[in-house]
Amino acid sequence: GLLCELEPSFGEFGVYDLVITDTGAGDVLCSLTTIKEPVNIYLPLLICILGLIFLWVVCSASSYFWSKLKNQCLDASSPGNTQPAPGSPDDKDIARPPQRQRLKSLDTFRGISIVLMIFVNDGAGGYWFLEHVTWNGLQVADLLFPWFMWIMGVCVPISIKSQLKKNVPRLKILTGVIRRACILFLLGLIINSLGGTTLETMRIFGVLQRFGVVYFVIATLSICFTSQTYGIPKGPVVAACQDIIVLIPQWLIIILIIGAHYAIVFHLEVPGCPMGYLGPGGIQDNGDFRRCVGGATGYVDRMILGVNHMYQNPTENEVYKSGAFEPEGIVGCLLSVFQVFLGVQAGTTLTFYQEWKDRLKHWLAWGTASGIIGAILCLASKEEGWIPVNKNLWSLSFVLVTSSFAFFLLSACYFLIDVKFWWSGKPFFYPGMNATIMFVGHEVAYNLFPWHWSVGAMNTHFMQLIEALWGTGLWILVAIWLYHIKFFLSL
Amino acid sequence: GLLCELEPSFGEFGVYDLVITDTGAGDVLCSLTTIKEPVNIYLPLLICILGLIFLWVVCSASSYFWSKLKNQCLDASSPGNTQPAPGSPDDKDIARPPQRQRLKSLDTFRGISIVLMIFVNDGAGGYWFLEHVTWNGLQVADLLFPWFMWIMGVCVPISIKSQLKKNVPRLKILTGVIRRACILFLLGLIINSLGGTTLETMRIFGVLQRFGVVYFVIATLSICFTSQTYGIPKGPVVAACQDIIVLIPQWLIIILIIGAHYAIVFHLEVPGCPMGYLGPGGIQDNGDFRRCVGGATGYVDRMILGVNHMYQNPTENEVYKSGAFEPEGIVGCLLSVFQVFLGVQAGTTLTFYQEWKDRLKHWLAWGTASGIIGAILCLASKEEGWIPVNKNLWSLSFVLVTSSFAFFLLSACYFLIDVKFWWSGKPFFYPGMNATIMFVGHEVAYNLFPWHWSVGAMNTHFMQLIEALWGTGLWILVAIWLYHIKFFLSL
Repeated sequence: GLLCELEPSFGEFGVYDLVITDTGAGDVLCSLTTIKEPVNIYLPLLICILGLIFLWVVCSASSYFWSKLKNQCLDASSPGNTQPAPGSPDDKDIARPPQRQRLKSLDTFRGISIVLMIFVNDGAGGYWFLEHVTWNGLQVADLLFPWFMWIMGVCVPISIKSQLKKNVPRLKILTGVIRRACILFLLGLIINSLGGTTLETMRIFGVLQRFGVVYFVIATLSICFTSQTYGIPKGPVVAACQDIIVLIPQWLIIILIIGAHYAIVFHLEVPGCPMGYLGPGGIQDNGDFRRCVGGATGYVDRMILGVNHMYQNPTENEVYKSGAFEPEGIVGCLLSVFQVFLGVQAGTTLTFYQEWKDRLKHWLAWGTASGIIGAILCLASKEEGWIPVNKNLWSLSFVLVTSSFAFFLLSACYFLIDVKFWWSGKPFFYPGMNATIMFVGHEVAYNLFPWHWSVGAMNTHFMQLIEALWGTGLWILVAIWLYHIKFFLSL
Repeated sequence: GLLCELEPSFGEFGVYDLVITDTGAGDVLCSLTTIKEPVNIYLPLLICILGLIFLWVVCSASSYFWSKLKNQCLDASSPGNTQPAPGSPDDKDIARPPQRQRLKSLDTFRGISIVLMIFVNDGAGGYWFLEHVTWNGLQVADLLFPWFMWIMGVCVPISIKSQLKKNVPRLKILTGVIRRACILFLLGLIINSLGGTTLETMRIFGVLQRFGVVYFVIATLSICFTSQTYGIPKGPVVAACQDIIVLIPQWLIIILIIGAHYAIVFHLEVPGCPMGYLGPGGIQDNGDFRRCVGGATGYVDRMILGVNHMYQNPTENEVYKSGAFEPEGIVGCLLSVFQVFLGVQAGTTLTFYQEWKDRLKHWLAWGTASGIIGAILCLASKEEGWIPVNKNLWSLSFVLVTSSFAFFLLSACYFLIDVKFWWSGKPFFYPGMNATIMFVGHEVAYNLFPWHWSVGAMNTHFMQLIEALWGTGLWILVAIWLYHIKFFLSL
């Protein structure tokens, strides 16, 4: 029978003593005493954050004084050579027309995604709230991959449009797209083989494979539907929405894709599982749906890829023991296309409006709209909504909520970096310019010195956090060095 | 007691039946019958070699006809644009003065070393005679690392002399040397961490670390002792030996280093081991010298590095169970310096003589001399000589014998490629031009798809050979691609 009923809050490294006294008459008295106070797990995080802020201040200040000193020396030696400092009002519109300049905010956004992704993959100091959520829900780590995809979308219309402007034939652009998609897929296979190269059990999909597939779809759509010239919009409403109007044919196809996803997830019959099941299966619900992990999403992968070629250690396996599941599988690709397409929408805004206010207005509107629709779909709840936010299933609400954050983050970066020049985008800017190298590099070097090391048990948050920050910091240094030697991997 | 005494020659995958019949009177009759004939293990090797020859012929023929076809088209379109084909007698001495041209034979030599090294590290099809020898002796695999070091030496005087010619200050050359040595050492540490990144048990030395250390020593010597200008030699004897005469100061230092090595190996007292012990220890000699693996060579590493920071799986461990031994350790560095210096001698010949006959004469003389001295030192025997040929100990006879082969191989390459133009050096030429990438790449990708894969048990020589050739071939393709995009890693 039940001996004690306690709801204690145990802490890490705390030592507790549970004393059970028989008071006679079958009754027991339970008392819990703390022998050793648990450690404060947030203290290492606080120390490291303060340390990083200190480092940032020191670096910024020294770089500021260094450039000031250099300018003074230049002033003294050749007074005609000076240029107005960035941010001074007279050069913003004349010397650097915003449409000619490479937007630093895009690279910074990509850099933030990849740096946080490296930090999370390095263990994130062992803090649960920085890691991936088990099934439904959204934690810091879950934002990064969708952001990374979204920002890829932003760059597609810019790149296609600039190539069309240079009169590159569409077939040639397509060849480049196919080449890039194949390389991404191959790089993904290389990374998958880090877990072993037995072909019978090799995982086929993964992060870079999804990038490859979705990039191919989205770039092909852009190549097909982007016009080299657009008429001058008639009327203020059309003028305010021309970035949406030009995308209408693509939006129709995207809506078809969302419909196909809906049909598969909610209307495909999966043997032994309820229609439209979205749970993690395994021991959840008393094990009623043991073999149903991911419902139709998982079923399609099991049928087409085979269990052996799927991911063997998905986030939910540890908790629900539901076995293999492919978080970057086939069905999830469909709404990933939508995710990237929301990025394409943001990028199209960039190509149609040169005024920063227009751009921000559109982005903030999109961010608000997608956020609201996403919140409605999941009823602003972790488990109770119609379509819960779920990274493993790449659900519609997940796409909308993460894209909403992306619209807002890009707006913030753009405003701070490219409009007001309050921030240079450092240090994220550098890794953002070599994101493929950063991603492949940190995956291949997942256990390599000097990025990774262990001393002793490594069982405290402090040591794990130091190790993760060290590894992430080294990759940032590699990115700065690559920038310095002007090496940018272009696939 | 002894039941049967048979000396059968068992073969792979053969099935045998041993029948022991008691003939009475305590006597037994043993009979061995073959139930299933063993497979011929040399057949896969033969098939693969024939396949490679076929591939070579096809590639050479198609490239020959392709260039002929292209030349004809060029002839037809612009008759003034044709150039004499390489190898035709009139352009050899006029159009391409040999001293201006990058010698393809050096890259080819380096390429042969790295390609064979990759093949051996990929398992070499599981053939014992292609792998490393257990302790004393010399097999194919043992030649590659010393060749690689030797050819590094050949390039040092060429590089230093060309920098001095451009009036680069010696201190600046030295800075570059130190930077390169440090990068090599760091790359070596990265490769060592492929086995785990626990700092308490991290291996410190390795192939690239030895390259770094020895390169630093040899290049520093060259910087110190290379003159920018040399007087015109007086007399035919001096003229015939000027490449040796200018190296006399360096030779003196090298002889001191050889002496130091001799003193350590033969006169350092190692507790519990006989003076000058050169064996593998462990269970050899009835286990009398169990903890003596490598004699003084091993002892110095155990004292300075500590057993935990040495190589844990040396070749002799499997047979003699003698535990950790560092094949790229501290004492071995001394004679590695000599190995590289013999390369420096070959390179100095290149910088002093422009006539191919002079160069070949010198190289063949050095090859013969070092071969004879090496053979005397080991008495042309595996185990019985004064100083047996031993890669783990990097013994003097090992240095001399492998360098002798190197002198002859370079002579052959030079004659075929740069003198007679009978061979272009393909395909080895390409990996030779990016040897660092090849080495680091194949180490990091030691178990990565698409270079490596397994299907089924992989327990036949044929499958293992196919896998090794596939991996090696892919690296050659990578090298060709890098050459194509003009990417050459210069440290």
